[in-house]
Amino acid sequence: MNRHTYNPDDCIAALATPWGESAIAVIRTSGPGSIERIGSMFSPEKRLTSAEPNTIVVGTILSPADRAPIDQVMAAVYRAPKSYTGQDGVEIFCHGSRPGITMILKALRRAGFRDASPGEFTFRAFMNRKMDLTRAEAVAEIVSARTERAQELALKRLSGALEARIRSIRDRILGLLSAMEIQLDYPEDEIESPLPDGLLSVQTALSDIAEVLSTYKTGRLYRDGIRAAIAGRTNAGKSSLFNLMVNEDRSIVSEMRGTTRDYIESWVSVSGIPVCLIDTAGLRPTDNPVEIEGIRRSERIIASADIVLYLVDGSEGIHPEDTDTLKRLESRPLIRVWNKIDMTDSEIPKGFVPVSSVSGEGLPFLYTEISRILLEGSLHPKDDLVIDSERQRDLLLRASEALSHVSLGLEGGVPLDAVAMDVREALDALGEIVGEVSEADMLTDMFSRFCVGK
Amino acid sequence: MNRHTYNPDDCIAALATPWGESAIAVIRTSGPGSIERIGSMFSPEKRLTSAEPNTIVVGTILSPADRAPIDQVMAAVYRAPKSYTGQDGVEIFCHGSRPGITMILKALRRAGFRDASPGEFTFRAFMNRKMDLTRAEAVAEIVSARTERAQELALKRLSGALEARIRSIRDRILGLLSAMEIQLDYPEDEIESPLPDGLLSVQTALSDIAEVLSTYKTGRLYRDGIRAAIAGRTNAGKSSLFNLMVNEDRSIVSEMRGTTRDYIESWVSVSGIPVCLIDTAGLRPTDNPVEIEGIRRSERIIASADIVLYLVDGSEGIHPEDTDTLKRLESRPLIRVWNKIDMTDSEIPKGFVPVSSVSGEGLPFLYTEISRILLEGSLHPKDDLVIDSERQRDLLLRASEALSHVSLGLEGGVPLDAVAMDVREALDALGEIVGEVSEADMLTDMFSRFCVGK
Repeated sequence: MNRHTYNPDDCIAALATPWGESAIAVIRTSGPGSIERIGSMFSPEKRLTSAEPNTIVVGTILSPADRAPIDQVMAAVYRAPKSYTGQDGVEIFCHGSRPGITMILKALRRAGFRDASPGEFTFRAFMNRKMDLTRAEAVAEIVSARTERAQELALKRLSGALEARIRSIRDRILGLLSAMEIQLDYPEDEIESPLPDGLLSVQTALSDIAEVLSTYKTGRLYRDGIRAAIAGRTNAGKSSLFNLMVNEDRSIVSEMRGTTRDYIESWVSVSGIPVCLIDTAGLRPTDNPVEIEGIRRSERIIASADIVLYLVDGSEGIHPEDTDTLKRLESRPLIRVWNKIDMTDSEIPKGFVPVSSVSGEGLPFLYTEISRILLEGSLHPKDDLVIDSERQRDLLLRASEALSHVSLGLEGGVPLDAVAMDVREALDALGEIVGEVSEADMLTDMFSRFCVGK
Repeated sequence: MNRHTYNPDDCIAALATPWGESAIAVIRTSGPGSIERIGSMFSPEKRLTSAEPNTIVVGTILSPADRAPIDQVMAAVYRAPKSYTGQDGVEIFCHGSRPGITMILKALRRAGFRDASPGEFTFRAFMNRKMDLTRAEAVAEIVSARTERAQELALKRLSGALEARIRSIRDRILGLLSAMEIQLDYPEDEIESPLPDGLLSVQTALSDIAEVLSTYKTGRLYRDGIRAAIAGRTNAGKSSLFNLMVNEDRSIVSEMRGTTRDYIESWVSVSGIPVCLIDTAGLRPTDNPVEIEGIRRSERIIASADIVLYLVDGSEGIHPEDTDTLKRLESRPLIRVWNKIDMTDSEIPKGFVPVSSVSGEGLPFLYTEISRILLEGSLHPKDDLVIDSERQRDLLLRASEALSHVSLGLEGGVPLDAVAMDVREALDALGEIVGEVSEADMLTDMFSRFCVGK
């Protein structure tokens, strides 16, 4: 395997918590003999090496070089196969001190551990059949989830819902294949043809796959989020709406960004969809070259945004410039916002969402409107089973294409051995999703996207 | 207790690892009934509530609101008194996902936990006599240690070396006090006078205290570190020396800072002493107003630095400007550095440390020179017992002062009951160091400086 050598017999170690000063840091290890290796740098040694599986012991980590104490720690001892990786392993809970963490990692290297590659613990879990590939992917997806909803959807996959669905589709096709193989092996026998039932199986499988595939757009939406630009004339209240939305959001999707840029952006959660909100410079005709440059930038942001919230100052009404800009934006996903309803009683024009960026009135409607537009046309099954992995989508498409060939072949009387090849292709693709069939390159690629320590 | 209410019967919870995306996050809880409370939001509940002490169980955290699964976790179960705090408690090892952490903390609040105050877990450990105050302070000192040496010194205190030393001093004084009290209670009896022995005890105690006190300067040095300014004329090689020292340092004391400032600084470890290295603008006569401002800033940095590394370009020799500046710096802690020895064979003037900021030659000597100057005059006991706490120093000074009065009183024939008061004052001060005697305000102040989750 290129770049990352995933030799499962190595003893590996990694800091599994973020680097920094904190109460506790976790250093994770795994591999045959890892308990004994850590025992040799642990005092009292026997307490660790003779610990019952899944128990926690207190002790001191010693430097293997000179037996000098490095830190007082708790150590969780796991024994194969009852562990995350399926191997022996120790998790060290040390003080969250930078030099302490550095010294323990150094000591582990000296004791024969190597630094774990990204995703290597989960890779071992997969290799030792502790989880299939859909669950392994869900681990990385949970860690990088931006909103509570994204976490829920990833957890659903982690709990095996997607694996079960794929396996049930695959079992149906497997049944068809064995029936076909019997007929191919004993063509002279008067075995009942699998074809009528077979066609039904294939069509059911196709519609099942289509249903899972249809959730991909939704899945990506919750996973990657979208960019929403707040646009409008100077003084339409863009910045106050921006601040209001950012401050109202209690889910703390991420820290404020953009302090080094000349525009401000921040992630907020809109009905669980991560939305990167961007405050743009006001749009208005000007001769000031600095302002012109700012407006040019705003135009670029608006052009690249997934959705535009266009604010009109309701207390001033629709200005000719508003009309012009709205006309230009017509073909884009756009929400017309009638701002400053706290300052005016004027009638709200049709197609506008009325809000007050001062009092927050109308904000819930704005959120509903944003998520309605974003989720338009994307299916969201009741059982919350949603995919967001490009790898899974590509394999489902491959299975779907092969099964379409099977369907056409069965209907068109194509020779059974030719049809069987397509059935096998579909089975391979479905098998690859859960990891029954897998290529080394694909695995390397997939796990290398994990964070270290996972 | 003001601001922080440290009610030990509350169930408390806190994220004990840094906030951010990572493989694992640890949420720590403690308090009577905490296992049952978490059991009510854990599936399978029994697995957690009937877990043996110090064991780890796998399960799912559920939302107390609607029993929706939040995350698959490992949970370590601790039962009083065998835990860090001495209370029942559960440590939750969840995925390091921001929304996941947020949801679990929210769920815990709903299940009756309140957010822990800084240092509250360690405070409970102290209240439940799991550790004395010197060890409790060492916990915070380990977490904030900047170098491996600082960690070692704090670990020494955590392991109880300071506590033992203070208690042995205190026991000696206690012996004296009881002898004095017997004589006060039974003045008519012909009891042997405690005075000659007593005086010896007091003098031994005074010298023990003085020895511990003498380590304070060293302790602070390792704890807080110092600021070292690299100065010199333009092109003396200041930036290359800065980069070399920062890059050679494998201890990763902290991330690079100062990107938003107009000078660059970074922490490095010099023989275990945290040194904040500051690269200054070159000093040279100029009329350029921007440059003048830069030089003015450099002068300010140099004036506030604890030590100055003044670089002379060895290939050019000592320039009159160098002579001027060095004269001005004479009264400051100063190291004269003869740079670019790779480019010249000229003789190195007396008092200069020869280095090459390109090849790194001579760097070890420079480090030795820095630590020699910094550690000058500070005692460093062989047993590595060093204090860095202002609180401890102040109390040791109080004890020392009281004991000096005792010594004078015993020698000068002051009435025994008056001397006994000073003995008690010394005992109180020593008792306060380990926490036998303690005031609520002091405790609040001390623990509030901890990080949350500790």
